[in-house]
Order: sequence, then C-alpha cells, then structure tokens
Amino acid sequence: MATRFDPHVATEWIEKLRVGTRNRVKDDLAVEEPLEIRVDGSPLAVTMRTPGEDEELAAGFLAGEGLIDAADDIAAVGPTQDFAANVVEVRTKSGLRRDPSDERRFYLTSSCGVCGKGALEFVRQEAPEPKAARPAAAPDAARKEQHAFDRTGGLHATALFEHSGELLVVREDVGRHNAMDKAIGSLLLGGRFPLEGVFATVSGRGSFELVQKASLAGLVGIVAVGPPSTLAVDLARERGMLLCGFVRGDSLNIYAGSELLSA
Amino acid sequence: MATRFDPHVATEWIEKLRVGTRNRVKDDLAVEEPLEIRVDGSPLAVTMRTPGEDEELAAGFLAGEGLIDAADDIAAVGPTQDFAANVVEVRTKSGLRRDPSDERRFYLTSSCGVCGKGALEFVRQEAPEPKAARPAAAPDAARKEQHAFDRTGGLHATALFEHSGELLVVREDVGRHNAMDKAIGSLLLGGRFPLEGVFATVSGRGSFELVQKASLAGLVGIVAVGPPSTLAVDLARERGMLLCGFVRGDSLNIYAGSELLSA
Repeated sequence: MATRFDPHVATEWIEKLRVGTRNRVKDDLAVEEPLEIRVDGSPLAVTMRTPGEDEELAAGFLAGEGLIDAADDIAAVGPTQDFAANVVEVRTKSGLRRDPSDERRFYLTSSCGVCGKGALEFVRQEAPEPKAARPAAAPDAARKEQHAFDRTGGLHATALFEHSGELLVVREDVGRHNAMDKAIGSLLLGGRFPLEGVFATVSGRGSFELVQKASLAGLVGIVAVGPPSTLAVDLARERGMLLCGFVRGDSLNIYAGSELLSA
Repeated sequence: MATRFDPHVATEWIEKLRVGTRNRVKDDLAVEEPLEIRVDGSPLAVTMRTPGEDEELAAGFLAGEGLIDAADDIAAVGPTQDFAANVVEVRTKSGLRRDPSDERRFYLTSSCGVCGKGALEFVRQEAPEPKAARPAAAPDAARKEQHAFDRTGGLHATALFEHSGELLVVREDVGRHNAMDKAIGSLLLGGRFPLEGVFATVSGRGSFELVQKASLAGLVGIVAVGPPSTLAVDLARERGMLLCGFVRGDSLNIYAGSELLSA
C-alpha cells in the first residue's frame, strides 16, 4: 500500500531484535527539528518541533503566552525574507501585548539552547567522546522501581545502569528531561561524572533533548519505551551512541549503535 | 493497604464517569511545581518539575547543558539561604564552563515564563474569563485524524472541537505544547480568537502548560488521554475549566469543571 507524503514522518533503516532473531527493516519516525520564532524582526523563542504548520505554531505560541489576544493582532506570518530554514517570522500590527524583554529572563532549557548553532553541531562541540560498552538489557528492573508511576500513571522515569546490567538509580518526574537530569545529577553529586559505561532507560519517547543530555553526560546510550524522533537518531549515530526504542519484555528496535548490543 | 508517604504524589477527590455511572472517588496525581535553579547567586533557569531530589535536578541540568563537566565543579548545592520555596542554589568552585549570558537568549516557553510571579497568579492575570459550555464527548474522532501517529507512534496530538462535538482541527507534533499551539494557531489565523465554546482533546498527560495555553486561548477545557498533574488540576479549578483524563471509549475521569459535563 502506498503511503501519501507526510512532512511529519521520515523513514529510516533500523534493526528489530526479537527473541532469537535480528532483522534489518524500514521504519517510520516522527520528524523533529528546531524552529526559531521571530517577531517584528527580533528572535523570540526556539522550540524543537515537527515541521509543518509553522505559521500556526508561531501564532498559537504567541496566544498561549498571552503576547497577543486577538486574531487581528497579527499582520502577517510566514518565512523570513531570506527564507532561512527553520525560521518563521511574525509581523504584528502594533507590537505585542507586553514586552517579554521586560520580564526576568533565564537561560533556556536544553532543547532551546541549541539555537543559532545547529543542534548537532552544538553537541559535537560540547560532548565528551563516548566510550564503547556493551550494555546488558535490563529495562524491567527499572520498571519495578517506578513507585510513583504505579500510583499515578503520570510520571516519566529515567533509570541508569552499569553496562553489566546493575541498576544504579531511578528517578521520576512529570518532565522527562527532569527525570534524566535527576538521575544523572544523583551520580554526579556522588562524585561520578562523566558517566562512562553507563546507559539509561527512559519511559516515553527518545527525544533529541534526552539523547543530547545523555551525550553530554558521556552515557553509552538510551533504551526508550517509546519511539525516537529523527533528530534523536541522527544525534545518536553522529555520536556513536546506542539508541533503542519500543523496548518490550522480549523485543526492541535498534535505531543507532547496533554494534554496541550483543546479539 | 497503607501507602508510604511520597512527595511525588498527591491525592485528590475526582469523579469517575463510566457508561451509566458517575462516582466520586479519591485518586493519586503526580505533583508538578516550578523550580528556579540559581548558580552563584544568579537565576539561571526555571523548570516545571515534580518536587524531590531538587539538588540532583540542578546538578544534572548543569551537566546536561554542558555548563559543568566534572563532579568537582560543584562546591555546594542546596536550598537558598532564605529557604525560599521552590528555589535551589548551586555554588560552583570556579564558575561555569562557559557564560550562558554570552549566548543568544530567547523568551522562554510557557512553563518557564511563569517564574517570579507564581504559576497560578500569572494565568489569573492574563487569561480571559472562560465561558461556560457543555462539550459533547468526541475524542474518538480526533484519534481517527492522527495519521502520523498511526505511522510512528511518536507524535502528540491536539484536537479542537466545538461544544456541539464538531471536530474543528487536529494537529500533531513531537512536542505536546507545539501540537496545541498549532491547533490554536490554526483557528487564530482563520480569524477566530479567543476560542469561546471550544474544547481540546490531547494525547498524553494533562500538564500545567497545556491547561495554561488552553486558558489563555479561552478554551472551555481539556480532555486528556493520560492523567493530569496537581498544578494542572489546581489551575483548571481556579479558572472554572473542564479537565478530564484517562479518557477511553466508555469512561473518563473528571478532575475539574464537572458541572460542565452533562451526565
């Protein structure tokens, strides 16, 4: 069956590991790329997003921040004059409802901090060289430690393992990135950093942000319960890291670093 | 059976709606609150997080941004001298690896923009008064429109409905907040804003950020596939909005705005 073209989806070669089998197959991934939103010529925000409907994203973002409060506030929205990739420009009729630069500004969380350089380039500059290691599969052990998840169904978790399979730490949070920050921070505060030979299992999807954090911490890689995005796969391949997804009791998909997993 | 105390979890009274029944029960929710991370006296970042292990979160955040690269870079981490709530302070031995203020800085995405005021207070000031409306349940229609989700399993979706149940728009993105921005932006660019009488169904959890965006757009409320956090429930109740979770074919949980749903 032919599938129609969809800018949200990209197809990649991956490996599917089942009990006793290991096959190379094609798989569809959600596309993830940074978008810079400019307003009246000035950069306002960068978000990691799935390309498509960028004008809607910019307009909705301004509304969701309370920076515009009527459809009429926007004069035009579209690509910049120089058609720079992954930039969308909003022109307002008479400025924003308030000046966001009047407010306290903070350094951005990681998926935004990549702006202006290119996401992969940023990590290439900053991350330590990953050390090869062959992690034993152990995501079930992590699941057993997720106490709050069991009660609420509403928390994400990151577990860190030695490549031997020994569970080091599990942390839970409403934010996936926070769960990983806590788990890495736990070992760091215990005096261990970077985390050579350590790998992470994460609930939910394998996003660019999580792979970036893992790379900067020197992890071998990530095993996710859900699927990764395109940019997460690109980064893991670029860094020589392991990236698995859709991990179940007896199967998982390998998107990068296949050579790091024993058959 | 007694459950041990867990700072990650809070218990709330909610309503469970099943075919033909509607019961008031107690339910466990994941706790969500903002945390400000300060470094050597200066505010660096704000994140919405689940309280607990804040020192680890701060340390891991700095590592994940490439702002420190050894455990030894941190001299101390803990509450601020005045023990301000939801603030954690890091003292470094000799500064960060690079000065984040040298980099391009952008206005923060919504869950960060609430800092310094208190999350609920921000929305109270900025959001329009919600108009009451009785949405007919229609999340199955949204699921049918999730083309990219069907192919990748890796995208979040927001669908907007008239309170009559008519589907207005479905948008998908790797980011939940982006999917909602796109859906709201789509109607806004079509000339409709604020979105009186409109409600949203969202894949995944009902976070504070999504309820905040819905409130600022004037939506009646949110019906989520997953569970909400405590702060999402607080905000929805504060704003008189509908907030449902764990929606399935024949059941859902009502966390706020129960009076807006016909029995």
